[in-house]
Amino acid sequence: MTSSAPLHFVTLLGSLRKGSYNAAIARSLPALAPEGVTIDALGSIAELPHYDADVQAAGFPQPLLHMAERIRASDGLIIVTPEYNYSVPGVLKNAIDWLSRLSPQPLAGKPVAIQTSSPGLLGGSRAQYHLRQSLVFLDAMVLNKPEVMVGQVAGKVDAASGELTDAPTREFLAGQIKAFAALAARARA
Amino acid sequence: MTSSAPLHFVTLLGSLRKGSYNAAIARSLPALAPEGVTIDALGSIAELPHYDADVQAAGFPQPLLHMAERIRASDGLIIVTPEYNYSVPGVLKNAIDWLSRLSPQPLAGKPVAIQTSSPGLLGGSRAQYHLRQSLVFLDAMVLNKPEVMVGQVAGKVDAASGELTDAPTREFLAGQIKAFAALAARARA
Amino acid sequence: MTSSAPLHFVTLLGSLRKGSYNAAIARSLPALAPEGVTIDALGSIAELPHYDADVQAAGFPQPLLHMAERIRASDGLIIVTPEYNYSVPGVLKNAIDWLSRLSPQPLAGKPVAIQTSSPGLLGGSRAQYHLRQSLVFLDAMVLNKPEVMVGQVAGKVDAASGELTDAPTREFLAGQIKAFAALAARARA
Amino acid sequence: MTSSAPLHFVTLLGSLRKGSYNAAIARSLPALAPEGVTIDALGSIAELPHYDADVQAAGFPQPLLHMAERIRASDGLIIVTPEYNYSVPGVLKNAIDWLSRLSPQPLAGKPVAIQTSSPGLLGGSRAQYHLRQSLVFLDAMVLNKPEVMVGQVAGKVDAASGELTDAPTREFLAGQIKAFAALAARARA
Repeated sequence: MTSSAPLHFVTLLGSLRKGSYNAAIARSLPALAPEGVTIDALGSIAELPHYDADVQAAGFPQPLLHMAERIRASDGLIIVTPEYNYSVPGVLKNAIDWLSRLSPQPLAGKPVAIQTSSPGLLGGSRAQYHLRQSLVFLDAMVLNKPEVMVGQVAGKVDAASGELTDAPTREFLAGQIKAFAALAARARA
Repeated sequence: MTSSAPLHFVTLLGSLRKGSYNAAIARSLPALAPEGVTIDALGSIAELPHYDADVQAAGFPQPLLHMAERIRASDGLIIVTPEYNYSVPGVLKNAIDWLSRLSPQPLAGKPVAIQTSSPGLLGGSRAQYHLRQSLVFLDAMVLNKPEVMVGQVAGKVDAASGELTDAPTREFLAGQIKAFAALAARARA
Repeated sequence: MTSSAPLHFVTLLGSLRKGSYNAAIARSLPALAPEGVTIDALGSIAELPHYDADVQAAGFPQPLLHMAERIRASDGLIIVTPEYNYSVPGVLKNAIDWLSRLSPQPLAGKPVAIQTSSPGLLGGSRAQYHLRQSLVFLDAMVLNKPEVMVGQVAGKVDAASGELTDAPTREFLAGQIKAFAALAARARA
Repeated sequence: MTSSAPLHFVTLLGSLRKGSYNAAIARSLPALAPEGVTIDALGSIAELPHYDADVQAAGFPQPLLHMAERIRASDGLIIVTPEYNYSVPGVLKNAIDWLSRLSPQPLAGKPVAIQTSSPGLLGGSRAQYHLRQSLVFLDAMVLNKPEVMVGQVAGKVDAASGELTDAPTREFLAGQIKAFAALAARARA
């Protein structure tokens, strides 16, 4: 990344639970970003109705249009999500289904990084490749590595503060953001 | 299928659009079933809220409980769905995410058949393998073959009546239901 | 499994390395099988040439015919394999590609269980779903659960004896074989 | 592609059959490339033994080293392959398994385009996403679109000359190469 131009990323969260571990991961990211990189959160995917082409025909929902505008204005999207039933949470996929219908489609050519977590050992890895397949259709520029799959996440978030406190995980996340910034800088060049 | 016991299947529809081609496919199934097999439709997945563990903690939605009871009482589930963004529609996956949280989990050991369709040539095939991966976790008994992937579906449904009129497709669907009935009969034996 | 009829399973090994951890897993299985279940190993997949339709036209290789005959005569196939490059080892897939060309195709309707392992935490899980997708085409009856994914396998095999010594892993494998025996008994009924 | 620098791509063929349709596709590519882009074929994957870590320990095969050197020297790799059993041919995956063990790993950061074909309608699409998953691990820069999936390929290759003669397919392939050249030019910039 030879450019000193600042980069701005936005995060899309795949869980609606108030005490979500993935929300804790997403909240940790701004402080982990390298100098010149800012990160903030998109609105909740809960604000989008179930995708329905008839609803679309009557007009795209305002929260979707706002979300899309912020993605377009960003230098990259970071998706932070649990895995449900060996795949992408339906509610997150629903947001992607809505975004895919817009023109210009906000993920086309957009750098995307993926972070998953799980209570078990696998860290949500199964959801990642399903998400990547959708992102081929959406023509996003998805970061290959490092892949962030946070296993045994419950032990890595402080129950009282709700903050991601596990130091190796924080360092690993910081490493992904650095690699993502390099990808995004090249994409903008 | 040596048994003469009747079988009852229920259909789960992955699209909310009123003029849905997949709805046309699902509606065609009762008339295509062999003697002794009845098929009817589950309630709309639109009735389920976005999955949220906090909502779950406050109580499972009534439409979900009703849907689950009907699946449990059936001899098999037929999922009829479009493909969105090379995967399962978010709104359908959301229904699966809800169903997966129930106890007893209604898809455990349950025979499942998959039917997808698309405007293009591939017939929604990419969604099928994602759905199958979720169904491993759910421990369903998924029919292998014949795989129903209806391509160029718009030309196979009559625009005026909304009925699936394409004869080869109807015959192919009938063949899958027959194979599914044999699987379900073995499962019940 | 109400039947007292004995069951016989065969193992297919996805690694060629002499000191293979997966070979250690496969060797452990006969001793872990419940009463009435015997397990032994198929010949090495190294004996099969690269799949080539021209070679096939000149005649199927003898080791393939022998392997297929043993699979057909068995009550189920247990595939034990590492994951290479987030998927099935090419050399194992090659064996499957050969088997798929035979008539009768030996995996059609055959119970199959999958065991993967890896040096890392994920235990080869990514290979499992790719293998399952191939097994849909082959119309195998694949065990859903328990899924065997042995992570950090190097610490679970005794370096001197080459035996799988980790007690929890042995117990977990025994549990899968028991579930597989129940599936195979139902399939034979 | 603002640069006038020439680009050189190499093709990797996933089929060993002499009359391979995919070979016909690969042979058509040099003539379909835009000005400034040259394309030629890597050696046959048949020359690589089955991957075996013990063989690797004794020394990488010469044909592999030669193949890797040509990939490294190229501006991008085009993989042209059939689909076997809903996935990547074992023999092609075997080549990838070998390539992945080299250091420097020749696909790291390398632009890659995928072309599949099949006798049926789906054009080998199922193999593409499995291949893409492996290419995440290999850290390749895989072209998203256009995706080349040539269905009903037998009718698009002239039986006498063995040439890909179907004009729309040739045009579509030319479009992918053009898009791939743009990706490769950006990658080199």
